[in-house]
Amino acid sequence: MSAKLRLHYDRLFPAEASTREIARALYESVEKLPIISPHGHTDPSWFADNQPFADPAELLIVPDHYVFRMLYSQGSPLESLGIGTDPGKRSEEQSRRIWQLFAEHYHLFLATPSRIWLDYVFEKVFGMSEVLNAETATGYYDQIADCLRRDNFRPRALFDRFNIEVLATTESPLDALARHDAIAGSDWPGRVITTYRPDPVVDPDFEGFSANVERLGELTGQDTSRWPGYLQAHRDRRDYFIQRGATATDHGHPTAQTADLSSQQCQVLLDKALTGRISADEAEQFRAQMLCEMAAMSLEDGLVMQLHPGSFRNHNRDVFAGFGRDKGADIPVRTEYVRALKPLLDKFGNRADFTLILFTLDESTYSRELAPLAGHYPCLKLGPAWWFHDSPEGMRRFREMTTETAGFYNTVGFNDDTRAFMSIPARHDVARRMDAAYLARLVAEHQLGESDAFELIRTLSYDLVKAAYKL
Amino acid sequence: MSAKLRLHYDRLFPAEASTREIARALYESVEKLPIISPHGHTDPSWFADNQPFADPAELLIVPDHYVFRMLYSQGSPLESLGIGTDPGKRSEEQSRRIWQLFAEHYHLFLATPSRIWLDYVFEKVFGMSEVLNAETATGYYDQIADCLRRDNFRPRALFDRFNIEVLATTESPLDALARHDAIAGSDWPGRVITTYRPDPVVDPDFEGFSANVERLGELTGQDTSRWPGYLQAHRDRRDYFIQRGATATDHGHPTAQTADLSSQQCQVLLDKALTGRISADEAEQFRAQMLCEMAAMSLEDGLVMQLHPGSFRNHNRDVFAGFGRDKGADIPVRTEYVRALKPLLDKFGNRADFTLILFTLDESTYSRELAPLAGHYPCLKLGPAWWFHDSPEGMRRFREMTTETAGFYNTVGFNDDTRAFMSIPARHDVARRMDAAYLARLVAEHQLGESDAFELIRTLSYDLVKAAYKL
Amino acid sequence: MSAKLRLHYDRLFPAEASTREIARALYESVEKLPIISPHGHTDPSWFADNQPFADPAELLIVPDHYVFRMLYSQGSPLESLGIGTDPGKRSEEQSRRIWQLFAEHYHLFLATPSRIWLDYVFEKVFGMSEVLNAETATGYYDQIADCLRRDNFRPRALFDRFNIEVLATTESPLDALARHDAIAGSDWPGRVITTYRPDPVVDPDFEGFSANVERLGELTGQDTSRWPGYLQAHRDRRDYFIQRGATATDHGHPTAQTADLSSQQCQVLLDKALTGRISADEAEQFRAQMLCEMAAMSLEDGLVMQLHPGSFRNHNRDVFAGFGRDKGADIPVRTEYVRALKPLLDKFGNRADFTLILFTLDESTYSRELAPLAGHYPCLKLGPAWWFHDSPEGMRRFREMTTETAGFYNTVGFNDDTRAFMSIPARHDVARRMDAAYLARLVAEHQLGESDAFELIRTLSYDLVKAAYKL
Repeated sequence: MSAKLRLHYDRLFPAEASTREIARALYESVEKLPIISPHGHTDPSWFADNQPFADPAELLIVPDHYVFRMLYSQGSPLESLGIGTDPGKRSEEQSRRIWQLFAEHYHLFLATPSRIWLDYVFEKVFGMSEVLNAETATGYYDQIADCLRRDNFRPRALFDRFNIEVLATTESPLDALARHDAIAGSDWPGRVITTYRPDPVVDPDFEGFSANVERLGELTGQDTSRWPGYLQAHRDRRDYFIQRGATATDHGHPTAQTADLSSQQCQVLLDKALTGRISADEAEQFRAQMLCEMAAMSLEDGLVMQLHPGSFRNHNRDVFAGFGRDKGADIPVRTEYVRALKPLLDKFGNRADFTLILFTLDESTYSRELAPLAGHYPCLKLGPAWWFHDSPEGMRRFREMTTETAGFYNTVGFNDDTRAFMSIPARHDVARRMDAAYLARLVAEHQLGESDAFELIRTLSYDLVKAAYKL
Repeated sequence: MSAKLRLHYDRLFPAEASTREIARALYESVEKLPIISPHGHTDPSWFADNQPFADPAELLIVPDHYVFRMLYSQGSPLESLGIGTDPGKRSEEQSRRIWQLFAEHYHLFLATPSRIWLDYVFEKVFGMSEVLNAETATGYYDQIADCLRRDNFRPRALFDRFNIEVLATTESPLDALARHDAIAGSDWPGRVITTYRPDPVVDPDFEGFSANVERLGELTGQDTSRWPGYLQAHRDRRDYFIQRGATATDHGHPTAQTADLSSQQCQVLLDKALTGRISADEAEQFRAQMLCEMAAMSLEDGLVMQLHPGSFRNHNRDVFAGFGRDKGADIPVRTEYVRALKPLLDKFGNRADFTLILFTLDESTYSRELAPLAGHYPCLKLGPAWWFHDSPEGMRRFREMTTETAGFYNTVGFNDDTRAFMSIPARHDVARRMDAAYLARLVAEHQLGESDAFELIRTLSYDLVKAAYKL
Repeated sequence: MSAKLRLHYDRLFPAEASTREIARALYESVEKLPIISPHGHTDPSWFADNQPFADPAELLIVPDHYVFRMLYSQGSPLESLGIGTDPGKRSEEQSRRIWQLFAEHYHLFLATPSRIWLDYVFEKVFGMSEVLNAETATGYYDQIADCLRRDNFRPRALFDRFNIEVLATTESPLDALARHDAIAGSDWPGRVITTYRPDPVVDPDFEGFSANVERLGELTGQDTSRWPGYLQAHRDRRDYFIQRGATATDHGHPTAQTADLSSQQCQVLLDKALTGRISADEAEQFRAQMLCEMAAMSLEDGLVMQLHPGSFRNHNRDVFAGFGRDKGADIPVRTEYVRALKPLLDKFGNRADFTLILFTLDESTYSRELAPLAGHYPCLKLGPAWWFHDSPEGMRRFREMTTETAGFYNTVGFNDDTRAFMSIPARHDVARRMDAAYLARLVAEHQLGESDAFELIRTLSYDLVKAAYKL
């Protein structure tokens, strides 16, 4: 039971020898490039405060819904994984119990991206040399906990060690961005920027929507109960975010629906939304309209726009009631783009000075809708394989189903989109390996020249993302 | 025209040498494991009566809608294939004509799973050594017919020779299960169990629904025109089935819709269903409600629940009118799970002591809906690639699109789901080979350790199915 | 910057050595077979007039929406590509500027089928030996322009050199087919036939529908404002087309919806359509009905029917307003076949003497709907991977997702479906290579015998298309 953990040098590359050799060479040419992380959900207070991470369970299990959803699906109660309990009140014994439980079920993650990322973290960050299992769990806990007490495992040190050139977090318009100010005001040169994520104030179904909009008014001195004031408040906060480094907005809508309504209609919808007397259809209209408004503002202030639609959030009623959001119960649904985006594209689709990056959880749209749209409209780009598809197979399918129609240059490189800071290098490593593997196959099949492949692997790993996100 | 039939030892394994070697070793480690067949549609009277199979056409063509639909699609009238005629009245000459027609068109099956299964049966069961075609047809007929007259080709002997540990059939609640009683009462130790398939008494659109429900009442002494009596009758028949070995139920609904209605609403729907004055929407509601009721009963009596939605049954109007059900004209349709299952999951989704196994004919749901659902909800498991996808490519896609999100342990091994008894070993052989091929690729690409792969191939071939179906 | 252009002998074949060897042998056996092009949109006047092609830009860029949509998506204005300007008024300098712009952006096409086709044309047709880029652009222009002035680059000479056995164009029922008459009356033996494409007179949403229907009446002497006259006019024009070699019709509907209405209902719809007071739903009904009418006529006159549904035409409002149809802004949408086709299949589905060839832009229907339908209904066949999917990956997915259920013999070989005459040999070459690669994998994995593979590659490259289109 003490199998060796040993990340293979050629992991994720095709087995066929000539293809593998090309893949390896391509990968080696970008392996050490800095990481650009333009979209994610890490906590800026880590880098503002630079306090040590608490313990192995708190670092790697409790906040990672990829990890605990799988354990939960196989019968481990969420409580047993520390979900819903105050981390401050957790004893070391409790943390060790969580870790042990996780270790005992580590086989559940075989052939999943979570295991790829975790094994990378275990070996590359914490220097573990045996596979995690019930027997090695205690040794793991001890060694990781020991590391976390050292200065060179504090957030800023890891950020530097991870070779991160820029990391974007995501904040609500109501956030004062004090932590970003603290980072900027510190002597640490790490670049941690924010992203304007207005869901709490543009989605009538968001918890506390109307209080949020009122707060938005207070922050900006605008009358956010009136449509013009509400829009102006957005403009003000976007400016505030831009001053803290933001180059992008992000929108997590249930669908990709957009709309182009009159300001009179907008006022009516806003009134209903603020009083909570808004129907599901009207709430959808409101969100749809706000995508067009955000696009219009992007044309003014230059923020790149990102749309992440198609997740049925909080699908599990009891888990939501008992534990809240982001507990592994967000389930993708069929997503339509062609008709949904038309109102926005009719207004701004032909503007080459506007960028709208589209993501999807519905892979059937890759070749049918997204690649044809991005291969035509100047404003559109395709975000990388997202969430459940941020995985070797997911990345392979993304390239296979989008490249022939949209090419490489209508894509924007990789996003890690993670809350799991430790996994960032692992995720970018997987992305670079899978791109190398894809390009290597094209070279081996004589569809692509070798020198083109070397240019492309750098473009996909570094250049496109900087250009697309204006970083 | 006398090409050799010779199943290659390495068939279905990847051509790349190192991967193939791993695949072969994995396969060899499970090749001889007993067959667990937890879901299928073989005829229990074969094993109750143990009479010889009639003739080659009656055994391999007439009852196999996979086979005759292909011949029909290429212009052979169904009548010419013996469909719709009484087998008892078929002369040997007619059977030979059917066989000859089939042999002349055997090229239609190139690269289809039917041909893989049939060639396996021809070589492994009947010892044929040449490829079937117009010239060899007569020799084939003679040799198979000769075999079928021998005792060691009777159903029980074949069951033993096929190394089947347990075989589940599927029966209506109205079935007295006399054949299962006969098997149990015989001196033959083969384990043939039943499965509770209530479609005829839960689907208002089923032929004879209201007579069926009346008959259900007679069988149980319940007033099945009243909602409580109707439910109690189900409980009684489930018990009856459990006593005959049933460990599971199966539900073949047009959609995955579930519902959680009041008993008052249920009575209204039942009334309408029994009088035949029920709208399409109401019939859907009734079926939806019954899925929740069946789930509730499973929590009481422990039967594992299986849902097979998404087939548009009897699509061909004239074929249905002339020849009846199951004539190769069932066509898959787009299927939605996330919203459809929510009422049931809101009630029972978090129960780890309940198992609902989901199947699909809509592969676009694998990565989008099914793997995320099964990777979260404790009650959910994914059934294997089903029906048209019970094929090498179908199995490959199933693993590639579900494993990264749901892992292996939220799946349940293989189902052959067949009426074609002879094909059972062939189908399990394909499944084991394709799993070996999939795991071998992961090993060759250093995504999976070799010892993990050896554990997994056994898990996928034998352990998961026993555990999931409580066998 | 002077990389060698050199189409590799083994391009598009799998890298694994044993598989590649089989693929190469299969390909070589069909490489020189004549091209059958049963569906496309080349201009018959090229072959009627046999005038030289104008210049490189006019030949390869301006008319090819695959090419200019990609450049447009990356910020090149359509005007800069010569779109929307009269080619007759374009100066050589302007053409050279278009060519230069294209060359500077040629990297956008890396790993797209457009680049595969163009490189083939550059090397095989025009003898270029360096890769196109900004530096080589002028040399390219000069050499291609020089070729185009020579007699052996005139349309008929190229047709002969391309080894085209038959080429089908597509015309409106209102077309007098004078160019086809001119070809037939010439001493050139090339076979260029027409196809009946009635969209302008069966789609109420088509520009000028009611004038078109009136013109149809004038051409045929029928009262096309009356349902029987309108149908008779179609019959007359179909006959007219048949006399000019047509063997097929083609239908480019937004959906696959069919209908079977009473003639009274049809008259009402026709009245509304002709006055322009028809709702979107009614227009859909009208088109749906016309598919059934066309099928009925096919049973009379023998024309093979093709259905190309699922494209949202002219999605870009401003591009449509400014530049018209076919400007790279047609975007696929989700397409449903199973319910949509039922009215037609209820009437004619079981007729083996009728052929309806189905195409799709929605790959999720391959395994779910299309292969099961074609694997059952005698009248149905599957067209090849279409449009955005006419690409190496697209073709691979088509075979992988249709063959196991529909077999090879319910497919119809390859269609190039192109306006780009020069690309025809390149496209057929890709199709033959990808089929060879697919079959080679099956052979290497011992799913298919080698002699069967050699028969199949010929069947897929030549025999099926001739049979399916009655050529």
